[in-house]
Amino acid sequence: MKTISSDIVWRGSSWRLRVDELETGDGERVTKGVIEHPGVVVLVPLQEGEGGPEVLMLRQYRLALDETILEVPAGTRGWDEDWLACAQRELREETGFRAASFHLLGEFWASPGLSNELMRLYVATDLEADPLPGDPDEQIELETWPLAELAQMAQHGRLHDAKSVIGILQTAVFLSTP
Amino acid sequence: MKTISSDIVWRGSSWRLRVDELETGDGERVTKGVIEHPGVVVLVPLQEGEGGPEVLMLRQYRLALDETILEVPAGTRGWDEDWLACAQRELREETGFRAASFHLLGEFWASPGLSNELMRLYVATDLEADPLPGDPDEQIELETWPLAELAQMAQHGRLHDAKSVIGILQTAVFLSTP
Repeated sequence: MKTISSDIVWRGSSWRLRVDELETGDGERVTKGVIEHPGVVVLVPLQEGEGGPEVLMLRQYRLALDETILEVPAGTRGWDEDWLACAQRELREETGFRAASFHLLGEFWASPGLSNELMRLYVATDLEADPLPGDPDEQIELETWPLAELAQMAQHGRLHDAKSVIGILQTAVFLSTP
Repeated sequence: MKTISSDIVWRGSSWRLRVDELETGDGERVTKGVIEHPGVVVLVPLQEGEGGPEVLMLRQYRLALDETILEVPAGTRGWDEDWLACAQRELREETGFRAASFHLLGEFWASPGLSNELMRLYVATDLEADPLPGDPDEQIELETWPLAELAQMAQHGRLHDAKSVIGILQTAVFLSTP
């Protein structure tokens, strides 16, 4: 495919919309919108509970859904922000804790058909209270859940946020692998 | 939060960008972009291989990434299209097979911080050759992979597409649960 033109048609505070005019091999013209995105840190903050590991989860209002959903903490990186600095900042803003240790489990694209949003997954441990003020447009409540229960929900389609399903399942595998 | 204004600023062939002006509880003004999306079917087409179940996978060029990646078949629904009709159409377009049976495993949001894109996951079985022409802007190659190998990759962060990680892991759980 040949690119005929490529323009940024909207810039938000964290991502932008690019629109490309393309010509296919048959000479057909196609218009495609693409989200240019700086990426997201996805966090699984762990603490020891009485019955095993527990995860700090969020109950968060999402404007795009007009719904409040259960998710792991996560946040958009600044374009030039260091990934680990972003992870610590988002953890403090969203949960009120800092972590002494972040372990990178992997990375994945959220929706590569329309966006280059890369999600980088960290397990955060050795937590200690150290809050930062959150974004004024975020409506968040903190909840503590047993990892084993979340893993059951993630395996059987009862957790409805993609990054949370992957974060919980890969964390469960990581902890059970010596 | 109070909505001051809400406008569609771009319409593509499958999704559109809405931009909202919001006022927070403190009277602060915030601009947020939101993708309005008709949703996606995510397919795990299974066939019996010599060593166990195999999955029809795609090696697909993604404009947003400017990269070719390994994914399960998937496709965007038309705004008024029936989900199962969409599943059968996308399966035929992308793999050249139709399925006699689709089993809904669950659904999840791809990236609820910016989009209402809902991904609905189906296991497709009893496959039979029955191709439909694909989209002219899609560059796809079909590959057959053992499910067990994909599940290992998904568990350990070696598959980098969110819907594929979830599709493979939930399918592996589904098949191992009598």
